[in-house]
Amino acid sequence: MSKKIPRSSTNDYTSEMAQIRRQFLTEKTNIELNNLGKFSIDPSTLPGNIEHFTGIAQVPIGMAGPLLINGEHAQGEFYIPLATTEGTLVASYNRGMKLLYESGGVTTTVCDDAMQRAPVFIFPTARQARDFAKWVKENFLNIKIQAEKTTKIGKLRDIEQYSASRFQFLRFNFTTGDAAGQNMVSKATKAACDWICKVYPGIEHYYLESNFATDKKTSQINMLHTRGKRVVAEAIIPAKLLEKIMHTNIELVYKARQVSNLGSLLSGVNNNGAHSANAITALFIATGQDVANVAESSAAIVYAEITPQGDYYYSITLPSLIVATYGGGTALATQRECLELLGCYGQDRVRKLAEIVAATVLCGELSLATAIASEDWVQSHEQYGRNRP
Amino acid sequence: MSKKIPRSSTNDYTSEMAQIRRQFLTEKTNIELNNLGKFSIDPSTLPGNIEHFTGIAQVPIGMAGPLLINGEHAQGEFYIPLATTEGTLVASYNRGMKLLYESGGVTTTVCDDAMQRAPVFIFPTARQARDFAKWVKENFLNIKIQAEKTTKIGKLRDIEQYSASRFQFLRFNFTTGDAAGQNMVSKATKAACDWICKVYPGIEHYYLESNFATDKKTSQINMLHTRGKRVVAEAIIPAKLLEKIMHTNIELVYKARQVSNLGSLLSGVNNNGAHSANAITALFIATGQDVANVAESSAAIVYAEITPQGDYYYSITLPSLIVATYGGGTALATQRECLELLGCYGQDRVRKLAEIVAATVLCGELSLATAIASEDWVQSHEQYGRNRP
Amino acid sequence: MSKKIPRSSTNDYTSEMAQIRRQFLTEKTNIELNNLGKFSIDPSTLPGNIEHFTGIAQVPIGMAGPLLINGEHAQGEFYIPLATTEGTLVASYNRGMKLLYESGGVTTTVCDDAMQRAPVFIFPTARQARDFAKWVKENFLNIKIQAEKTTKIGKLRDIEQYSASRFQFLRFNFTTGDAAGQNMVSKATKAACDWICKVYPGIEHYYLESNFATDKKTSQINMLHTRGKRVVAEAIIPAKLLEKIMHTNIELVYKARQVSNLGSLLSGVNNNGAHSANAITALFIATGQDVANVAESSAAIVYAEITPQGDYYYSITLPSLIVATYGGGTALATQRECLELLGCYGQDRVRKLAEIVAATVLCGELSLATAIASEDWVQSHEQYGRNRP
Amino acid sequence: MSKKIPRSSTNDYTSEMAQIRRQFLTEKTNIELNNLGKFSIDPSTLPGNIEHFTGIAQVPIGMAGPLLINGEHAQGEFYIPLATTEGTLVASYNRGMKLLYESGGVTTTVCDDAMQRAPVFIFPTARQARDFAKWVKENFLNIKIQAEKTTKIGKLRDIEQYSASRFQFLRFNFTTGDAAGQNMVSKATKAACDWICKVYPGIEHYYLESNFATDKKTSQINMLHTRGKRVVAEAIIPAKLLEKIMHTNIELVYKARQVSNLGSLLSGVNNNGAHSANAITALFIATGQDVANVAESSAAIVYAEITPQGDYYYSITLPSLIVATYGGGTALATQRECLELLGCYGQDRVRKLAEIVAATVLCGELSLATAIASEDWVQSHEQYGRNRP
Repeated sequence: MSKKIPRSSTNDYTSEMAQIRRQFLTEKTNIELNNLGKFSIDPSTLPGNIEHFTGIAQVPIGMAGPLLINGEHAQGEFYIPLATTEGTLVASYNRGMKLLYESGGVTTTVCDDAMQRAPVFIFPTARQARDFAKWVKENFLNIKIQAEKTTKIGKLRDIEQYSASRFQFLRFNFTTGDAAGQNMVSKATKAACDWICKVYPGIEHYYLESNFATDKKTSQINMLHTRGKRVVAEAIIPAKLLEKIMHTNIELVYKARQVSNLGSLLSGVNNNGAHSANAITALFIATGQDVANVAESSAAIVYAEITPQGDYYYSITLPSLIVATYGGGTALATQRECLELLGCYGQDRVRKLAEIVAATVLCGELSLATAIASEDWVQSHEQYGRNRP
Repeated sequence: MSKKIPRSSTNDYTSEMAQIRRQFLTEKTNIELNNLGKFSIDPSTLPGNIEHFTGIAQVPIGMAGPLLINGEHAQGEFYIPLATTEGTLVASYNRGMKLLYESGGVTTTVCDDAMQRAPVFIFPTARQARDFAKWVKENFLNIKIQAEKTTKIGKLRDIEQYSASRFQFLRFNFTTGDAAGQNMVSKATKAACDWICKVYPGIEHYYLESNFATDKKTSQINMLHTRGKRVVAEAIIPAKLLEKIMHTNIELVYKARQVSNLGSLLSGVNNNGAHSANAITALFIATGQDVANVAESSAAIVYAEITPQGDYYYSITLPSLIVATYGGGTALATQRECLELLGCYGQDRVRKLAEIVAATVLCGELSLATAIASEDWVQSHEQYGRNRP
Repeated sequence: MSKKIPRSSTNDYTSEMAQIRRQFLTEKTNIELNNLGKFSIDPSTLPGNIEHFTGIAQVPIGMAGPLLINGEHAQGEFYIPLATTEGTLVASYNRGMKLLYESGGVTTTVCDDAMQRAPVFIFPTARQARDFAKWVKENFLNIKIQAEKTTKIGKLRDIEQYSASRFQFLRFNFTTGDAAGQNMVSKATKAACDWICKVYPGIEHYYLESNFATDKKTSQINMLHTRGKRVVAEAIIPAKLLEKIMHTNIELVYKARQVSNLGSLLSGVNNNGAHSANAITALFIATGQDVANVAESSAAIVYAEITPQGDYYYSITLPSLIVATYGGGTALATQRECLELLGCYGQDRVRKLAEIVAATVLCGELSLATAIASEDWVQSHEQYGRNRP
Repeated sequence: MSKKIPRSSTNDYTSEMAQIRRQFLTEKTNIELNNLGKFSIDPSTLPGNIEHFTGIAQVPIGMAGPLLINGEHAQGEFYIPLATTEGTLVASYNRGMKLLYESGGVTTTVCDDAMQRAPVFIFPTARQARDFAKWVKENFLNIKIQAEKTTKIGKLRDIEQYSASRFQFLRFNFTTGDAAGQNMVSKATKAACDWICKVYPGIEHYYLESNFATDKKTSQINMLHTRGKRVVAEAIIPAKLLEKIMHTNIELVYKARQVSNLGSLLSGVNNNGAHSANAITALFIATGQDVANVAESSAAIVYAEITPQGDYYYSITLPSLIVATYGGGTALATQRECLELLGCYGQDRVRKLAEIVAATVLCGELSLATAIASEDWVQSHEQYGRNRP
């Protein structure tokens, strides 16, 4: 038997072809596949989402909430679908949501919004690269026109420039509507670059990507300059609620934060928080996001302080959160239902989704941070006998 | 109606409770949920994987292969299940697998293997912290005994030490068998730390985590010192095959690599490769891994060169790949089937899985890298008229 | 006797006061000071350069050259004064200058030029910070007017903005003529910020510095966005000259470069070159620069490749080189003479100095890189007997 | 006239040869050199410190102190020679020393001590590199013997290992007595590597350096693993003294610190403090250190907190401070006098010098930090009229 995975040249997106491929695999490996084939998705909806469709992964979804959000786009109470196989994750977020609910909710703000493609232009000398940089600045509007010819939705906002040796790195920043926009900006940037190459003399070569957009990779540049949405979630948690609901006290939680900040500086981590990746991944799987973007979307910056009133100000900034309410896996059967539950399916919803993700992350941060401190607290109570009957 | 998500105090892991929760959501949001409830998982298998189980996300799986691996643990041909909603992903990996198949396969090596927990000990002064560091070194065996009391499988390999101010950061490195081991090492490290606090005087406080293990976060320290598996996948691709299968030439591919390396240095990215996150995420979802670990597992280091024979040596190092063939979501219905397809379900399989992941990543790197260069190549042919009839 | 260092309230900048302070020290420590007091500087020229003037450090200066530069500002042959106590440093740079002389000289380009101060504005919430960011953008011209009121020379070029939590970080970029400009931009930025605080409501607090200009500290942000001068020095070295003058071959040198790049990525170094700090420090001491700026000025990015002709293209980019030909120590007796030797004392000379520094650095990089490879080369000759008579 | 700098083949280290070189320069450039030639150094002491000796840079030295230190090696009061041309530097450190004196002095601790050379071994495959790693670990004692054959003073403490692709990076850690030790460890490491190459089969190539010791460059690895001395300086400053001496209050100083920490995380700086480079550079020039090491020595980690008593705990950790009391420029005329003033000339003094440097740095950090906050404080007093008569 051939080693090649069976494929239909006429219509490959059918239950039959999926079945044929599962059979092929069973023959190759002697493994019975009783569950991969159990799905309610219509295979004919899958072109553009998968090739060699063979079955589905069933990822369990748990619900957490209500999550109370005071956003500009997300306002009110939300129930959050979290797709995960990691026990306690849903429970932990749920517990954080309770704390934040009692505290008056999470305030969310989308501070910036841009999707990038970062071509590099190579010149014979640094001097030519520098002169090109000047030309790009002066010809921004023409470049913008060329880029936007390829898309109705994408708008070229600006071009950041970086240089080293005889290379000029351009970082094209687009707004992309409700789509994540990676493909949209690739196409638009390519059009602009091709035009540049036609009109600007002396370019030795250009590559459409140079590791300066760092797609599906976390980077300092994206933490500084945003990729996707830059969202802040913040709240003030009354000290009394920390005690009552989380069974810990504010000094211990704050001290742990200081130590975490110090550790972060030394370890060179892209995230001085606790576990943003947990919420983001679970929401991404549930709502049909490109889950590989967890690599950069999970970058986070925590800032916390004790207010003059003795309460706990806590914030998390997600500098490169990539979300979509259109395109990708958002229209698939279960994924769409999850988006609809959040009121995030359809037009003009993407910032709402961004706010919901950030608010969810904040709840989980406080849940885990206080759990750690709580243990200390309980222990020290034990140690000093205060809990003894 | 109450805002609280319904929960059964007797048995929450039933299809009925999932259904009650879906109904609750429908009532709250007016959204019909026709697909979330279609699953073949038995809810009674879900304790330890999810709370408030409500339904499933159906994530389409495509197959790529055969992937030819010359590993120490993975040997021969594999068909790789990739769960994704991103179009062209499966096709792109499949194309890379073809190239590597023709090139003689991917050689894989697990170079290191350790799971961490990193407590911090706080002292009144730096001098006491330094003296403690010495004591820890001298008392390693006792600490090991305490840690290993809590686990049959976990073995404390060594303790790295880092210091700043009056803090001593310990990074406990364990081997954890076929489990990813985060919980195992937390428990073991806690036992060791509690013992340390009992016998060593003068500790002001300790926290079980200090952002020096950087769980679910990528960091320089994990790139240097490994988290989970450090795996290398490497291959030599004949220049002729690059031309024949990928329609590009080796000089263009190599030049793009050099530019990428330069860009990486400047942008501060955790990965000078192309898109390791794509393969890792798709395999993680399919095989029941903790997908949030994509945050750190997608870190990668590419090294490539043109051999004296004019062929292309290409390697990728995954310094913090976290995989398991036991525990987590590995035993769930579809996830287990995918692991079985790879011969990775059951004991002593985790390094095999690590090798398969790394080999898959390598194929995708070459596929994307050559696609980019190929476009240039085609273009330059166009430009110079060589393709004209 | 009092512990307080003697100080004259009428005129502290005299040889007598220096002598009194040396005596005080001798009394305190029983150490005879026979050399500290031997100087030809006129103490009355020292206000603004030092307090409690007590004597001088005599740092030996060696000369290297001729260095052949093809810059836009530095053109022709230069003899370079290097103040150091590290043996072989001068000889090594001299050797590199010979190689580059024979190769046709070093091409230098100043690609960017800006000095920063980076205040942070604190708001009660992230949303207010974001709205402020918009206002800053719209009111740039007014802010510029306020800043430039304080200086005849400094010009506010633009304001970069960064955000996290409820903080808005502004990075003011000024051009500063022939001065390094740190004090000039502090004063100008402070004036602008004070004005902003007066006209913009709701600012909780502002600090004039936030670790976003990273004065006297190296940082990713300064590597990306320039501090002081961004200068590139580049050259093509014929393979034959590498053999003849440096006794090595191009393949070995290039291979070492590849390994260095890989090491740099992993070790998280701010410089993938060899030893830029050596030239920069020696030139800074000799010419009266603020030597503490070596911390950031020594950051460097090397890019090298073998040309299609088989020669060696080599470049170094100094992204944050801080130099001045006016102010600081530039007018002191020996320092001024060294600047004059370079034709860099007086107006409109600062970019010339920047080019000379970069060209010097390049020579040292090639000297050390080939020395390392040469050793290998000699060794491998030894090993394989080719050098045997 | 020849372009070549004059050089005596019999004895180049004389006042005459220096004079001849100055004349040569004057002829070449038409610049009179009246000060470069005024020195009290005996040129015959300069071999090993400089080549082409031509004159000296006169760098003014100011004195600050008394600095009160509670170290293990430095104990009591010190007067600190600072060679700089930057006005206010000496005054600022002096002010900090006063504050710390009143606060009871600075506590200093040398926490670690090692000098590195980091060769890389290249193998045909990753698997061979990994097996080599194991061999190195098992053969540490033999490697140590080989390395220590070349030096009476250097001791090989341990070898850290790092890997990527088919490269094995070894980081040799030596103790080097009172010398900085870079040359000593190069020689010793080379001997060890040559031996390794003789006895271990299959090594494709090795380079003595791989950018993993990052000599004269700052890096994350050196911040984590120490280069030279890792020193902590710490103190508790009574809140009342901050008010009385520094004219500010503790809350403002602490708040600025928090913002600085946040800025540091984002800007990717190697130092979350203020200006360690200032003290280090000025002390390095004065005492004959290799000033280019400021590049890595100025890395710093600040940790501060308000104590339960309301006072200010402040610490600075210098993770890669490179100092010597033997070798390099330490025996030169003025440099030796400065070392003698500190009681740091001669044997077994290097840790004392390290403690003095760190204590000096701490004083400057507090001086600048409070100056910034003081301004705010004064301003807010102004604003609210409290200072009005």
